[in-house]
Amino acid sequence: MSNQGKPAVALLSGGMDSATVLAIAKSQGYAVHALSFDYGQRNRLELECARKTAMALGAASHVTMRVDLGAFGGSALTADIPVPTGKQTQSGGVPATYVPARNTVFLSLALAFAETKGASDIFIGVNALDYSGYPDCRPEYIRAFETMANLATKLAVEAKARVAIHAPLIEMTKGQIVSAGLKLGVDYSITLSCYAPAPTGEHCGQCAACQLRKKGFDEAGAKDPAQRH
Amino acid sequence: MSNQGKPAVALLSGGMDSATVLAIAKSQGYAVHALSFDYGQRNRLELECARKTAMALGAASHVTMRVDLGAFGGSALTADIPVPTGKQTQSGGVPATYVPARNTVFLSLALAFAETKGASDIFIGVNALDYSGYPDCRPEYIRAFETMANLATKLAVEAKARVAIHAPLIEMTKGQIVSAGLKLGVDYSITLSCYAPAPTGEHCGQCAACQLRKKGFDEAGAKDPAQRH
Repeated sequence: MSNQGKPAVALLSGGMDSATVLAIAKSQGYAVHALSFDYGQRNRLELECARKTAMALGAASHVTMRVDLGAFGGSALTADIPVPTGKQTQSGGVPATYVPARNTVFLSLALAFAETKGASDIFIGVNALDYSGYPDCRPEYIRAFETMANLATKLAVEAKARVAIHAPLIEMTKGQIVSAGLKLGVDYSITLSCYAPAPTGEHCGQCAACQLRKKGFDEAGAKDPAQRH
Repeated sequence: MSNQGKPAVALLSGGMDSATVLAIAKSQGYAVHALSFDYGQRNRLELECARKTAMALGAASHVTMRVDLGAFGGSALTADIPVPTGKQTQSGGVPATYVPARNTVFLSLALAFAETKGASDIFIGVNALDYSGYPDCRPEYIRAFETMANLATKLAVEAKARVAIHAPLIEMTKGQIVSAGLKLGVDYSITLSCYAPAPTGEHCGQCAACQLRKKGFDEAGAKDPAQRH
């Protein structure tokens, strides 16, 4: 592993995809500093899942940073409007669960965090197939962010370390993601996908995120350890 | 003014440059929503200056958002290391007052704010001449951010409104900035430039920011209304 001990930053949400990405980054030899955001999301259980996952997968450190995106409003994930059930993108448009500029905000903060850690590798769990309604989950977006980041930072300008945005799941199906994670020993029982879980953490089984999670485990021919419905 | 009443977002720090930018955006007809950041900067007086400036210049709204960049450390502006005096870029390198990925973080949050306001025009007071040590004050950086923003957002993807990052000061000298602002009626007495002001708000007159401010007023042949030394 040529990256042995090299610092990297991985965004960690508490869901399946970012847990899988953290495991992938670790498997490539990086010392992974995990970064989570408390952005006023209604679902507070996510942050607890992120903390457990960072510990379980041996992250070098884990920071949860507060960013008050809720002050801006405009999304079902942070505001008091109903969470849509069923397939999110049936109209072909952008889903109501879209948070304004979310990945741009999160990658920018990851870039700041990376600079303070001397890291030039940033991992994010975006996926272009299952989340086709989100503009900031597309490969062309990730490449444009990377280009910008290499013009933005002291790290890139002075140290001549090229910033790389790694999105290892971007072209994978949900089934391939689950398979990859299981192979790397990810404990999916401590991840949370549901948009509207019970106060005790059970998945609702109905929302778009739960249906996508089920599809992933079905395709991988595996049983979801967190599924209680 | 073809932009009459069109919403825009302007970053407002409490300093001279962003006050001038707000006045420029207003003069072009925009309804300007001002956005300031409480990012753990040591200098709390800045935020009070931003609030006064937003009111004085007739911003449509003003939001101060808390972002805990201080949690990352790494800069004289947020950490407990001495503020450099004199010219910042004498070594040709990046100055110690650099905050990791600051403009990237701020522009990203401005982009999120703009989406919730239905705005596609974002104004920022970066300057490439006097701040040549900062990679994220260069025209090529601003253009790369703009390209990324147009791939990132619902606004750009669905509404087909092209996101524009306006940096009207980028090629101006400090004297030209002061002249432009005075012509537009900016009250510089309520702006603060100093890295290490007295608790009562007086400029130290010694730090790099004070010297640059003095240069601006000297070049414009004007007296600084905030200068008390």
